[in-house]
Amino acid sequence: MPNLDTILHQLDQKARLDADWGQVASYIPQLARVDPAQFAISVVTADGQLHQAGDHGVAFSVQSITKVFTLAIALGRSGDQLWTRVGREPSGRAFNSIVQLEQENGRPRNPFINAGAIVTTDAVLGNRAPREALAEIIHFVRSAAGSGDIHINETVAASETAYGHRNFALAHFLAAHDNLTNSPDKVLGTYFHHCAIEMTTAQLAMAGRFLIHAPNMPRLVSPRRIRRLNAMMLTCGHYDGSGDFAYRVGIPGKSGVGGGILAIVPHQAAIAVWSPGLNRYGNSHRGTEALAELTTRMGWSIF
Amino acid sequence: MPNLDTILHQLDQKARLDADWGQVASYIPQLARVDPAQFAISVVTADGQLHQAGDHGVAFSVQSITKVFTLAIALGRSGDQLWTRVGREPSGRAFNSIVQLEQENGRPRNPFINAGAIVTTDAVLGNRAPREALAEIIHFVRSAAGSGDIHINETVAASETAYGHRNFALAHFLAAHDNLTNSPDKVLGTYFHHCAIEMTTAQLAMAGRFLIHAPNMPRLVSPRRIRRLNAMMLTCGHYDGSGDFAYRVGIPGKSGVGGGILAIVPHQAAIAVWSPGLNRYGNSHRGTEALAELTTRMGWSIF
Amino acid sequence: MPNLDTILHQLDQKARLDADWGQVASYIPQLARVDPAQFAISVVTADGQLHQAGDHGVAFSVQSITKVFTLAIALGRSGDQLWTRVGREPSGRAFNSIVQLEQENGRPRNPFINAGAIVTTDAVLGNRAPREALAEIIHFVRSAAGSGDIHINETVAASETAYGHRNFALAHFLAAHDNLTNSPDKVLGTYFHHCAIEMTTAQLAMAGRFLIHAPNMPRLVSPRRIRRLNAMMLTCGHYDGSGDFAYRVGIPGKSGVGGGILAIVPHQAAIAVWSPGLNRYGNSHRGTEALAELTTRMGWSIF
Amino acid sequence: MPNLDTILHQLDQKARLDADWGQVASYIPQLARVDPAQFAISVVTADGQLHQAGDHGVAFSVQSITKVFTLAIALGRSGDQLWTRVGREPSGRAFNSIVQLEQENGRPRNPFINAGAIVTTDAVLGNRAPREALAEIIHFVRSAAGSGDIHINETVAASETAYGHRNFALAHFLAAHDNLTNSPDKVLGTYFHHCAIEMTTAQLAMAGRFLIHAPNMPRLVSPRRIRRLNAMMLTCGHYDGSGDFAYRVGIPGKSGVGGGILAIVPHQAAIAVWSPGLNRYGNSHRGTEALAELTTRMGWSIF
Repeated sequence: MPNLDTILHQLDQKARLDADWGQVASYIPQLARVDPAQFAISVVTADGQLHQAGDHGVAFSVQSITKVFTLAIALGRSGDQLWTRVGREPSGRAFNSIVQLEQENGRPRNPFINAGAIVTTDAVLGNRAPREALAEIIHFVRSAAGSGDIHINETVAASETAYGHRNFALAHFLAAHDNLTNSPDKVLGTYFHHCAIEMTTAQLAMAGRFLIHAPNMPRLVSPRRIRRLNAMMLTCGHYDGSGDFAYRVGIPGKSGVGGGILAIVPHQAAIAVWSPGLNRYGNSHRGTEALAELTTRMGWSIF
Repeated sequence: MPNLDTILHQLDQKARLDADWGQVASYIPQLARVDPAQFAISVVTADGQLHQAGDHGVAFSVQSITKVFTLAIALGRSGDQLWTRVGREPSGRAFNSIVQLEQENGRPRNPFINAGAIVTTDAVLGNRAPREALAEIIHFVRSAAGSGDIHINETVAASETAYGHRNFALAHFLAAHDNLTNSPDKVLGTYFHHCAIEMTTAQLAMAGRFLIHAPNMPRLVSPRRIRRLNAMMLTCGHYDGSGDFAYRVGIPGKSGVGGGILAIVPHQAAIAVWSPGLNRYGNSHRGTEALAELTTRMGWSIF
Repeated sequence: MPNLDTILHQLDQKARLDADWGQVASYIPQLARVDPAQFAISVVTADGQLHQAGDHGVAFSVQSITKVFTLAIALGRSGDQLWTRVGREPSGRAFNSIVQLEQENGRPRNPFINAGAIVTTDAVLGNRAPREALAEIIHFVRSAAGSGDIHINETVAASETAYGHRNFALAHFLAAHDNLTNSPDKVLGTYFHHCAIEMTTAQLAMAGRFLIHAPNMPRLVSPRRIRRLNAMMLTCGHYDGSGDFAYRVGIPGKSGVGGGILAIVPHQAAIAVWSPGLNRYGNSHRGTEALAELTTRMGWSIF
Repeated sequence: MPNLDTILHQLDQKARLDADWGQVASYIPQLARVDPAQFAISVVTADGQLHQAGDHGVAFSVQSITKVFTLAIALGRSGDQLWTRVGREPSGRAFNSIVQLEQENGRPRNPFINAGAIVTTDAVLGNRAPREALAEIIHFVRSAAGSGDIHINETVAASETAYGHRNFALAHFLAAHDNLTNSPDKVLGTYFHHCAIEMTTAQLAMAGRFLIHAPNMPRLVSPRRIRRLNAMMLTCGHYDGSGDFAYRVGIPGKSGVGGGILAIVPHQAAIAVWSPGLNRYGNSHRGTEALAELTTRMGWSIF
């Protein structure tokens, strides 16, 4: 068995030598300003040990990765009823496409594209105030990570609101199809805030432990639901690059536009990787490369 | 030459006997409540005479028909620059489709579908307050009609705002593509108000005189622009039923979801017809039938 | 009234000075080889006089312009039944798009896009041999033109067959939706042949006389059908550039990829223009420019 | 550990009691005539043992399941070059959609939708005669299954050709985009023949052994390629129902319109299930239900 610490150290070195950083997200100034040279990787194994390399102490905007946590919460609140409002098929489209939404009468393809995550957020809201729903989300994430030091970056949330016309379009479109129980403004306020949660890769890997499905891990959802969350991360977790990620990396994962990826090796490990530059699908370029090499060298592909 | 008054009288009688009224628009209560049995037709001929039959004194919500007036104003303000922001091709889609907007990067196909009319409204707004732009629009319409008794129904405008999620989606989508200079809320506030103008068919036919292109008619735009507004009404004036309207009626026209249609016989007449029930394209059912018979009997097809 | 001969002469001179020739169709060698410098325009007025300028004696491949003649024949054979198989709405798509066909279950939007013309050709075929149907088509065109010297270019037809994969795709797709009564091979054999008819602009203008709707013109279809063919040419005759043509030229017209356009001034004239270079919609660039100027100077817009 | 034989026996009994059989494919008479009551399941475990229940001796048309074998062969012949001609993303569309093909310029989304499998077949053909390519395919399948008694049903192949307009449309469309090196007729002749291979579930499960990735299994492709074939089966193996299959069944699988499914439990087992009735995605209804229960009870989900 190869030594995990050695591999992580090598991946970190290799990432820093990689001339191709990808493109840092630029739609809001807070993301555009992030230093693209940064790279971090943290792995929690089933024995609870944390292995890591690189900038694992730097907090970054997890963005869409929170969709995994909000989906877990929404399923806890609504159960399989949720699937009447959102599908679980890969979308074959960009993350923010509105075309499919029109063709499918306002039912988003899955909870990991923006439209689907807006519906999930609405389900988490229920008839509560955004403040209460956000308190539940942040509590869930902190419990999962075993850390109280996880916060929402209000400046990022405000920026998303100011530049979020496409998400407003999606939310109003969902409302036009009676697929929101709260107003678009209220749902998006909540949505932009939970996407603005910041974590280090150390925290994010720890927060992913509940999806490992191993003893001594935080038990936040049932084993059956763990399997299904992982299945959905595999088929839909990387937008229109999900097939490629499954093919090359071979494990469930969810990316965020901030350059983070949370990936799960069922029964064995939770991995958080971060590097701000994105590939053409909007997923971390160097993060994906590192994961592909890590799963190959560790024999961690699920296939 | 057949007698126009006789024909209009017969069309009115026939419309009242037509068992198929179509479907009255039901997305806002103010439209849903309108008595579907009503029918009115008014014709202004090039000699300035007004001929009419039916409920020509009843004011109705002109809705999308105002897009003709706002387009005329927008072209007056922006000139051909406007065409960089909106196309002039038939859409081949429903009036409120968002699909095409995504495929064509936020440039609506033409100014008569909702997305295009929102852009046109933004051009009319410029950097003015909505109140000022609305004052110009209402002034234009009153001048065209030669009547000061034309008003905006504030209740309808408020209802449109409350139920207008699809239009909010379109506006935010346009903003996401940098095709709005004002905020979606400001543009839609103006849009919903000018769509809520109410007129009788008598007023609407009179308001259409400037498009006849005949001497002694109000001269609000140049002859060249008259031709082009008429051309656009012919190819795009009835959404996805424009080809059918051209084929059966054979003259330029613009319909509104309130059941009105303004149609122009170049050099000869302006026609306003109204009956609230709509056909499957969202255009007045009995209004279209009456126009088809009128143009046939009068030899008014332009083809 | 301006002098028509003078204008045509000036248009010819202007076209020859126009540095922008557009792009000659290159999908088959026979079209790719045509000298792009050529230009011709012929006009038949309601008094039967032929006015012309440029290379009006050179025969060119009329291609999609034959769709007007085959539609006239198909309507004569099938009547309004034809509209159950093909629509009459502008397509909002490229001439050879297959997308819309799938979305609308194999019913083409109109008879002037390729898919629609393939259905029309199938209707002309009926249960006859291609040879018989082609004989009727060529007979119709010769009668319309008053000339026996109009022929099919067999080399062009063969080339179309060899390079016609997209049309084969469309035909098989129509067959899959039970919208062909003959085999795709048989229908396309006929289709490629009638598209390969060659005419001079003089012949084509003469062939368009039956659409003028004036006394002393060949009476090949009823006045009601003339109006409807013209309406369809206006809304659908230039593919995804139909709105632009209506806006700028203002009369019904049908273009072909060979660079020809047949345009009709109802009650007044039939115009044939030809110049091989195409604009981005696949319609003759210099031909369209010449028509725009001609209708403006002659006051021939129908709007 | 539950007893596999007992479970299979119970699944068989349960399937026969299931009132909902789904819909048998009816596009060709040979499939429409199959008795929908039939059900069979066969499992080969990593120790080489074959466990089965139901009609496991009845041969059925494997149809699209052969796409797994032809993809393996095509990758062997072309290597990663194949991915320049076909993608590896879920399609988000029906198996025979042509829309996406137009939007993506003739590059099919993945090798398991029809368009992609036609490209794969073309790659297997190379510049050989169809007979030679088919010999290789049948040899590969027989070697994998360890049985010489596997054949092509010529009647089915002929029927597919006769009713295959949609596949002809796809093939011509691919040819129009220069994505076929052989003629559509030649490629489809080969395609229809390999889809017409017939196997029993016993043979099919045995043929799937090379994808188990365990010692003592036939070694037909490299371990790296095994992982990637499995990844692709998971994300794309059930058309537009792939997400649902991953979510509910949790292992890689490939379905065929004949009602068969080949599913792989990496490192542990190959499963073939068959029941002719299909669900709305075109995948075996009772087969999917049986697999969902089997993986749950055996703990075989990969997630």
